[in-house]
Amino acid sequence: MSIVVVGSVALDSIETPYGKVERALGGSATYFSIAASFFHPVRLVAIVGEDFSSGHIELLKSHGVDLEGLVRAKGKTFHWKGRYNDLNVAETLATELNVYADFDPELPESYRRSEYIFLANINPDLQLKVLGQVRSPKLVACDTMNLWINTALDDLKEVLKRVDLLILNDSEAKMIAGEENLIAASRKLLELGPDRVIVKKGEHGAMSLTSETFFAIPAYPVEKVVDPTGAGDSFAGGVIGYLASTGRNDEESYRRAIAYGTVLASFNVEDFSLRRLSSISREDIERRLDQLRQITRF
Amino acid sequence: MSIVVVGSVALDSIETPYGKVERALGGSATYFSIAASFFHPVRLVAIVGEDFSSGHIELLKSHGVDLEGLVRAKGKTFHWKGRYNDLNVAETLATELNVYADFDPELPESYRRSEYIFLANINPDLQLKVLGQVRSPKLVACDTMNLWINTALDDLKEVLKRVDLLILNDSEAKMIAGEENLIAASRKLLELGPDRVIVKKGEHGAMSLTSETFFAIPAYPVEKVVDPTGAGDSFAGGVIGYLASTGRNDEESYRRAIAYGTVLASFNVEDFSLRRLSSISREDIERRLDQLRQITRF
Repeated sequence: MSIVVVGSVALDSIETPYGKVERALGGSATYFSIAASFFHPVRLVAIVGEDFSSGHIELLKSHGVDLEGLVRAKGKTFHWKGRYNDLNVAETLATELNVYADFDPELPESYRRSEYIFLANINPDLQLKVLGQVRSPKLVACDTMNLWINTALDDLKEVLKRVDLLILNDSEAKMIAGEENLIAASRKLLELGPDRVIVKKGEHGAMSLTSETFFAIPAYPVEKVVDPTGAGDSFAGGVIGYLASTGRNDEESYRRAIAYGTVLASFNVEDFSLRRLSSISREDIERRLDQLRQITRF
Repeated sequence: MSIVVVGSVALDSIETPYGKVERALGGSATYFSIAASFFHPVRLVAIVGEDFSSGHIELLKSHGVDLEGLVRAKGKTFHWKGRYNDLNVAETLATELNVYADFDPELPESYRRSEYIFLANINPDLQLKVLGQVRSPKLVACDTMNLWINTALDDLKEVLKRVDLLILNDSEAKMIAGEENLIAASRKLLELGPDRVIVKKGEHGAMSLTSETFFAIPAYPVEKVVDPTGAGDSFAGGVIGYLASTGRNDEESYRRAIAYGTVLASFNVEDFSLRRLSSISREDIERRLDQLRQITRF
């Protein structure tokens, strides 16, 4: 089994009530890769610029991330600058696409038979392009974001027809479905193609629906959310990473996968950038999973 | 064991995207009483006017609610008129206190040794007055609302020093604690007096904290929320009703009580007024509790 993630690798400048970082390692594919790496090897498809440091490369390598698909181009790495006043809502101060403006994902030949494909929240047009390059994957999952729902909904719907699993947040689910009730909205998303929808609700946890099953899980309680950036991608990394490690796709495996995703997200928000995720062990993850089970038992 | 609830019995005129009702039975103590009645007899302390119909009295009686503490005064019953555009936020169109303006809760002698006391979200001044009338209760629980947090915080803090259990919603918890992180806010509330805080999060479920325990539960999924009025009081009724029926106050009993509260709230929002709660059976409740357990298992 192997996992391919296609998304952004970025440098983020972020300010929260607990401090700030300048051009720290970030990006959807980065968070996903490190989170998934605790369970299964990941192949990364993304683009960075000349300013992407060897330290960042080493961090990814130390987590066993395959970088054959990471293109280094002339110019600067994608840079996002944002601020959280309320820790639930990001305010974008600047988005400099830089080399990412020319991102045209090309999977190395060795990646094309990968069984697990995660399309992070990139342009649906690029997501479709990736789907044209993979051969008989076992599971295709995707995320999206409000930008594409507003500007590229037709392409996004084409993607949804071709994915097995849609992972997105609650406001995105409501936007696509045009429906305020989150359960009803999620059911409408199932009609658009995916066999399963997993809705991320931040501090309120997550839920998962198929046409026949429903699962809901609270978030792991974090008293001090230092930086929520990347929580959703860490969650997805935990989910897909665990699924790939088992090779199974039954309801029970999905539920455990979502619990792992919940745990990875909870670690991620405890510090800026990849600091927390890169400092934990599989044992830390197992301990928190046990706590999560204890917290929800009745 | 017996339960006393002190709160409002009202007539509500409510409009939601699914329809409307005029002067339908409502009020915090009403929802609480009917919900709790599935588990244990309830004694109701409230005030109504001459327009309060015999049909409403019969409904309460048919659920075994003791009405010795229900005062019928000259004038009209408390009337609340509200509208929900978004089903998560109530817009108050009119509040006519009527006889409720003179509500001065006096517990009948036979109520004063009741073991379980629930102070619904009435003026903290009145909550304190009730506390002065009860003798060595086993459990005192209270709710509150933004109005009292804004206008009577000192009295409210006096109440909190004297209750065992605080049940309130997430925005109220954040307001009292002056803290945006809900976990941190809830911990601050514990410092104000109660041994346990249960936070209601609407569609996101509920959580419960003591200085040593943490429990979180998602909401039971309801695809069509017809009218959310009274959900919080139905929840509290399920919690206290179940606790009183067991006579226990260990963590496991609380967790099951909170699950029952979650189930009662989920029924309540499926129709206007008390319509849904007054049409279900204990078997319906048990069935949904089983489903809730199945939905959250991993």
